[in-house]
Amino acid sequence: MAFRDYVSEAKALFDKLLPDNQITEIDYEGPTIVVYTKNIDLFSRRDDIARQIAQELRRRVMIRPDPSIMEPEKEAEETIRNIVPAEAGIQDIYFEPDTGEVIIEADEPSIITSRSSDVISRIKEKTKWSPRVVRAPPMYSRTVKEVREFLREVKAERKKFLHDLGLKLNQPTMPGETWVRITALGGHREVGRSATLVSTNNSKILVDCGMLNTNEIDEQPWAGAPYLYVPEVQPFSSLDAVVLTHAHLDHSGLLPILFKYGYDGPVYMTAPTRDLAALLQQDYIKVAHAEGHKAPYESKHIREMLKHTIVLKYNETTDITRDVRLTFYNAGHILGSASVHLHIGEGLYNVVLSGDVKFERTWLFNPANNRFPRVETFMTESTYAGRDDYQHSRQEASNTLIDIINRTFDRGGSVLIPVFAVGRSQEVMLVLEDAMRNGKIKNAPVYLDGMIMEATAIHAAYPEYLNKTLRESIMVKKENPFLSPIFKRVETKEQREDICDSDENQIVLATSGMMNGGPVMEYFKAWVDDSRHTLVFVGYQAEGTLGRKIQRGATEVTLTEGGKQIKLPVRMAVETADGFSGHSDKRQLLAYIATMQPKPHRILVNHGDGEKTVEFAKLIKSRFGIEAVALRNLETIRLY
Amino acid sequence: MAFRDYVSEAKALFDKLLPDNQITEIDYEGPTIVVYTKNIDLFSRRDDIARQIAQELRRRVMIRPDPSIMEPEKEAEETIRNIVPAEAGIQDIYFEPDTGEVIIEADEPSIITSRSSDVISRIKEKTKWSPRVVRAPPMYSRTVKEVREFLREVKAERKKFLHDLGLKLNQPTMPGETWVRITALGGHREVGRSATLVSTNNSKILVDCGMLNTNEIDEQPWAGAPYLYVPEVQPFSSLDAVVLTHAHLDHSGLLPILFKYGYDGPVYMTAPTRDLAALLQQDYIKVAHAEGHKAPYESKHIREMLKHTIVLKYNETTDITRDVRLTFYNAGHILGSASVHLHIGEGLYNVVLSGDVKFERTWLFNPANNRFPRVETFMTESTYAGRDDYQHSRQEASNTLIDIINRTFDRGGSVLIPVFAVGRSQEVMLVLEDAMRNGKIKNAPVYLDGMIMEATAIHAAYPEYLNKTLRESIMVKKENPFLSPIFKRVETKEQREDICDSDENQIVLATSGMMNGGPVMEYFKAWVDDSRHTLVFVGYQAEGTLGRKIQRGATEVTLTEGGKQIKLPVRMAVETADGFSGHSDKRQLLAYIATMQPKPHRILVNHGDGEKTVEFAKLIKSRFGIEAVALRNLETIRLY
Repeated sequence: MAFRDYVSEAKALFDKLLPDNQITEIDYEGPTIVVYTKNIDLFSRRDDIARQIAQELRRRVMIRPDPSIMEPEKEAEETIRNIVPAEAGIQDIYFEPDTGEVIIEADEPSIITSRSSDVISRIKEKTKWSPRVVRAPPMYSRTVKEVREFLREVKAERKKFLHDLGLKLNQPTMPGETWVRITALGGHREVGRSATLVSTNNSKILVDCGMLNTNEIDEQPWAGAPYLYVPEVQPFSSLDAVVLTHAHLDHSGLLPILFKYGYDGPVYMTAPTRDLAALLQQDYIKVAHAEGHKAPYESKHIREMLKHTIVLKYNETTDITRDVRLTFYNAGHILGSASVHLHIGEGLYNVVLSGDVKFERTWLFNPANNRFPRVETFMTESTYAGRDDYQHSRQEASNTLIDIINRTFDRGGSVLIPVFAVGRSQEVMLVLEDAMRNGKIKNAPVYLDGMIMEATAIHAAYPEYLNKTLRESIMVKKENPFLSPIFKRVETKEQREDICDSDENQIVLATSGMMNGGPVMEYFKAWVDDSRHTLVFVGYQAEGTLGRKIQRGATEVTLTEGGKQIKLPVRMAVETADGFSGHSDKRQLLAYIATMQPKPHRILVNHGDGEKTVEFAKLIKSRFGIEAVALRNLETIRLY
Repeated sequence: MAFRDYVSEAKALFDKLLPDNQITEIDYEGPTIVVYTKNIDLFSRRDDIARQIAQELRRRVMIRPDPSIMEPEKEAEETIRNIVPAEAGIQDIYFEPDTGEVIIEADEPSIITSRSSDVISRIKEKTKWSPRVVRAPPMYSRTVKEVREFLREVKAERKKFLHDLGLKLNQPTMPGETWVRITALGGHREVGRSATLVSTNNSKILVDCGMLNTNEIDEQPWAGAPYLYVPEVQPFSSLDAVVLTHAHLDHSGLLPILFKYGYDGPVYMTAPTRDLAALLQQDYIKVAHAEGHKAPYESKHIREMLKHTIVLKYNETTDITRDVRLTFYNAGHILGSASVHLHIGEGLYNVVLSGDVKFERTWLFNPANNRFPRVETFMTESTYAGRDDYQHSRQEASNTLIDIINRTFDRGGSVLIPVFAVGRSQEVMLVLEDAMRNGKIKNAPVYLDGMIMEATAIHAAYPEYLNKTLRESIMVKKENPFLSPIFKRVETKEQREDICDSDENQIVLATSGMMNGGPVMEYFKAWVDDSRHTLVFVGYQAEGTLGRKIQRGATEVTLTEGGKQIKLPVRMAVETADGFSGHSDKRQLLAYIATMQPKPHRILVNHGDGEKTVEFAKLIKSRFGIEAVALRNLETIRLY
């Protein structure tokens, strides 16, 4: 691939096709060529023209209005508020200068957009911004708001970053032998601290950078980290791109330390993953501090991550290095979760990394995509790939949970459910809301502690990532189950104490999901010696977590409190309602592979307990005749 | 392992045990603590005392005389020449200040050392140097002389280098999880460009750094190099140690580029390997220039290598990094060739890399050692491990060669034998000398072109590395076969042309052994179209070499001469006399493993043609039940 100066090529093309283009600037912005014009006509026909130029150039082109032709944002906002009728109920107005759009969030969008009104055309004419009217999100998310504001603040820095990235992406590739390698840095033959390096003779791409779900991570710094100090990823500035499959901390938790220790390149993820990851990372720091530990990074490193984040939609292909193109596909696991498709070289090689994957339609999401344009090597998670890892159906899981709750309520107890804030919480909320509405459980307060409500609000902010039924019940029918009055947010220590002391029947959903810290520990400590109460596991409990120990039947647990070790006998009932998992069970993983298109030549098994991954690789080999191995952390395999 | 200040510990020990020690300096010199003293008594009892201190300290200790108590070298040499009787025939005198020894090379050592003479005691008394009297080497090696002189020149630099290395070796090891990895960088699933990285959480050790034996290496820079630009070994300054198994260019050929591109750490090898490697590398540059190519390094980089070389004897164990100890064992392949034993951590893990290995007594060497104190992973070469790779015995090989020569002579032709300067040359010389002396071939000149004589002289300089029979015939019986008048050194272009034009029966041994350049090409071009002559292969021909093509029966070959391609029909006879190989054949490799002590847990197969390595790994697994794999270049396996 020789060096091409796309900027001057683009300029020449515009001059040839549209001599009166009034272009004021052409520049790289990451993989895209952005063109600023004062020509309003050109701008209004931007999509067609961009497509035409992009075809010639073989590079994505985006045409933007030159800021000088638009009404300044502050004035434009005032203009819009004056034009739009009060009944429309404007909730928010914000500008996206990159597209020349102004987004108007309103309670009744139809009032603005109805054919009989001239609101839209008047806004256009007056402000020169293109209005996009959307329904105001049904729930308020502080995270979404803050991330959006932060990105606006650092716009200038981001512009420079994207420009530099664009230049880098257009450098010629190295001559000589080409090759593709995968290095296992974490989450191989184990669950937690996911990190996999895909490298070529031109690129180094790190996929995920998580932390171990263990109760010991804070005691030894870096003990819960992937093998990030090995030469393959050192210095971090030698990495070309980082890709995040989804927001859970075992995939995203240590991403900010890359920025703390020198990385300043792009991080690719979906928009909801960005917001959820920032939320969970911020909470991780908070919890660590609350428990007297030192987190390995600070808020400012999360902000650095946000500043370098480039969001992609599902099925949208982007050049992320000189020789690699990335496409995200729905992975069905949590909001915004993605499988990663890497197309290397010009048709040279294709790798798919499943990320955490759910190959079943859930209450929240569509099943994972398993059709790709090409794939030679497929890396699959195997959390539930063991011999006996068959999970119940979603319906069975609900019935089990309802039964557990009813039995607990009958004996005057309360129910504590440790949950990941993201994913399982929302599924359980949907089940509880439905069960109480239909009288399957008596009405009782459902307390949500530890960011669950905030995480839920982020779901509502990205309805396009939910399955159709849920999307419609949230957005169209206005029957948003998450807004049911049964749900109560716990925000203070006092509230928590009241709940712990109460003799009423209650349900508490609290983080963390594997009981390695978080508010769930307070309820657990308060209720652990009372056999009326029940602790219900609904999600995967990793090796080394307190959750795993208790789930396995520990009759006594040791906790550290204020530097002291305390021993607690476990007297509350301990139950598991399986079937809520965001992971495919063994049957689903096999179905995924069986129906995968195209069939990969090689399968790498990761993200599973030690020997399970090896067994599952053997099973794949015997069942499908596909070469399959489970790498060990610190191993490198050559794919091409 | 915590930090220990061995220097002050040593000082304290000396002060306690020998208060009147008159120590003037204590310092690190690589892994050794060196102690300088003015106390002549202490110095004369140095071996006992050093052993005692070393036991307490658990570190090697060397006691040296303070230079101020010795007669200066120049004066001492004069003194010695005056004392020693002329009949002893002094050939050389040189000083080793590190040990306080003066080495006196004489034709008749016994005249100096005889009990009846007081020569030794007079030298000691007058000069304070300890005389070591050795027989003057029977052949003059410019290389040995030049290397020795160079090392004397850079003594001060070496002292600093060894001091800094000593400090580094005494740094504490990193806390945290320990692991051992092997990364295949070259010579895996192929023959050539050997390079293997052994890394731990504390060390990075590169074993070998060779070049491909191909005719195309000079056309693309780095095309014949191992994968040295990968992050695992970049920057080169991140390497802690380099180990060289033997001098052949497919193992040593690119070692100087490490120094060109920033490495400045130690290189461990045997003394003959050092001299042979310098000779072959220097010749490689010369040949490359002669053929109009640019070598990837210059003589000064070879000198840097020499400056950083630490020589070890077989069976001598040395700390080479904070957590790794190295021991060389005889590999039987060529002069000084070694198998590498790495002892990692305190009893944590042991790796043996065979290097090129001959598990049979040859005319030159004892068979390779296959007994080690411990070994968990064994990496074996597999050059002749293919299904049908059974070699003839040394005796059969000789008979075949004699027969080929006689047939060629009978039809009035000459014999051209492409050889590696080191190893095969000397074996073939021994066979030819014996055959002519015993009338099995008629007397005819044997021309040696391309450093063969020089390489042979290096053999004579290190008799302790040869097998007993040869050592005695060279040194004791004075029947040095290498000095037979049948051998004639070719030194000029004119000589070469005369030989090419002559109609006499002649035998030419010329480098390179795989016909990828070197003087052999001149004879080949002169004789190729004459069916009276014979080309005889006696060594391994790697994939991609001209030798391989011709050996496989090419009837026409294309050569590049002065930038032009010339086509030559092959009309001279082409034969192979197998059984001269310095490599174990399949039977010998299996015998090596079968009798290896202890039995390794895992075997890695390298240094063989593509699929052969994979097949041999399978054979090992089925035959011995030992896990065996053939890594691909660029792959990393975790051993611990």
